[in-house]
Amino acid sequence: MINIPSTQQRSVKVAAPGTVANLVCGFDILGLCLDAPYDIMEVHLLDEKKVIVKSLDGYPLPEDPMLNTAGAPLVEMLDELQMDIGFEVQIQKKIKPGSGIGSSAASAAGAVVAANILLGNIFTKEQLVRFAMTGEKVASGVKHADNVAPCIYGGVTLIRSIFPLDIVPIAAPNLWVTVVHPQIEVRTSDARQILRKQVFLKDAIKQWGNIAGLVAGLLQNDFDLIGRSLEDVIIEPVRSILIPGFDEVKNKCKAAGALGGGISGSGPSIFMLSKDETTALAVQKEMKQVYDAMALENNTYVTNINTEGVRVLT
Amino acid sequence: MINIPSTQQRSVKVAAPGTVANLVCGFDILGLCLDAPYDIMEVHLLDEKKVIVKSLDGYPLPEDPMLNTAGAPLVEMLDELQMDIGFEVQIQKKIKPGSGIGSSAASAAGAVVAANILLGNIFTKEQLVRFAMTGEKVASGVKHADNVAPCIYGGVTLIRSIFPLDIVPIAAPNLWVTVVHPQIEVRTSDARQILRKQVFLKDAIKQWGNIAGLVAGLLQNDFDLIGRSLEDVIIEPVRSILIPGFDEVKNKCKAAGALGGGISGSGPSIFMLSKDETTALAVQKEMKQVYDAMALENNTYVTNINTEGVRVLT
Repeated sequence: MINIPSTQQRSVKVAAPGTVANLVCGFDILGLCLDAPYDIMEVHLLDEKKVIVKSLDGYPLPEDPMLNTAGAPLVEMLDELQMDIGFEVQIQKKIKPGSGIGSSAASAAGAVVAANILLGNIFTKEQLVRFAMTGEKVASGVKHADNVAPCIYGGVTLIRSIFPLDIVPIAAPNLWVTVVHPQIEVRTSDARQILRKQVFLKDAIKQWGNIAGLVAGLLQNDFDLIGRSLEDVIIEPVRSILIPGFDEVKNKCKAAGALGGGISGSGPSIFMLSKDETTALAVQKEMKQVYDAMALENNTYVTNINTEGVRVLT
Repeated sequence: MINIPSTQQRSVKVAAPGTVANLVCGFDILGLCLDAPYDIMEVHLLDEKKVIVKSLDGYPLPEDPMLNTAGAPLVEMLDELQMDIGFEVQIQKKIKPGSGIGSSAASAAGAVVAANILLGNIFTKEQLVRFAMTGEKVASGVKHADNVAPCIYGGVTLIRSIFPLDIVPIAAPNLWVTVVHPQIEVRTSDARQILRKQVFLKDAIKQWGNIAGLVAGLLQNDFDLIGRSLEDVIIEPVRSILIPGFDEVKNKCKAAGALGGGISGSGPSIFMLSKDETTALAVQKEMKQVYDAMALENNTYVTNINTEGVRVLT
């Protein structure tokens, strides 16, 4: 039986950031945490074993917390504790659901990090990822860690293995990230179904050459190597057909100086990595021009890699 | 027209070491250089545009240097030079051909490194790898760099891409390597043919998670991570059936403390990595016991990673 000290704070406000999963050649294994955009979440300690989730933006949310991305991880967390406590979560959703930059992961990760602070940080980051994965299951039907891991650890994270879970933080240089979210819907289920179950060995070899190069480039601050390695010969050629303008965006961004990039998560957002802010802004301009010319509504972000993950606001 | 200064040395003796290619999950992309065994090669400058290769062990060698692993790279090298010079190569072959630890690569790499010294080091390591790949084509019909790159660069090398050639040295901790060569023949062509042209995407994802983990582990001196990542779910399950006793060797070596290992090149040699010499020697004992019990003649080596590659003896 764990006791909450009476001096313990009873509420906390956190910023839960967006994330980019499926980092080009790192499909299903490599993700990074963004500085912006982020959800704002406030979590209050309750004296009763229950979980309440409220949207401050007027979104209707299911009553049952187990059907909610932020609620389910907290129910799992409480199940592991012999304590008569609960949580109320209030969410200001700034990351648009379905954008491909980890909207559901931010809700799940923000909830568990905030709750853990109210519990006196009794859980490790890895345990928090496990709880948060329950939220991803609510959102997409699959327990995956590609977004919740970078959201909780910050920086770039490698999911070396999902069963058993093995998360490896990868120290990276301070890259700039430009994201464009064209306002079209790509259903994650469609993005999954379109993938072939088998791939050519020669393509797989190219892919693992590139992922090895990307990890080495990140750890050694070798921007050229990062750029050369940001190539996906397996997933992108198939999935990019779901995103209008993808090839044009990619070619123009690289011509503008981006190191490289690709589909964020399962799309429709596209992200590009750059060495400096000037390039990241030039890349943003190219992205906007492509989608404005297609009269396709779009949001863009120019941001950094967030090395902290979910962070406390008050 | 390049002139050889008259003060230039006219002969050089080098040690051309064995190498381990296909480093477990790094099939076709990752290799390492061994301290032992090594061939001893002596190269003499000639005043005539020709290449002569002689075996000091009495092996019969083809007259035409283009049909010889050490000769072909030197012919290629001379083709790029407007000079009336040539080379005579004398080889003491210590690395058994067909053992799977880069015997042909050692001949090719030793020849070009030695010749380059006699030319006043006018070629870069990458150029030397390109020449040496011609020797690999003579030996196996395919220009590959998995063995010649670590033999020339030393240490662990990543071939991120073969066309265009992109070699990335990966700094690694000073691991111990134990190798066993059971005296059976595995033809490289058989080892190639047995591989499936297509692989399951889910297996490829596991493989690139492991290669990412292995590169991160090597660069960060994280022995645990190296050990967890030394897993090959694609090539080893297929190729290991060509090597009697493979599973038993692997299991017993890991039980004796090895971090992990697998098939060296396309076999039949098996290699294991260990943190220290005591473990590497215990691993050697296990290897010998398995093959001695099968009455299968075998050689074993306990050695380190050679960070220098081909090295000058005199």
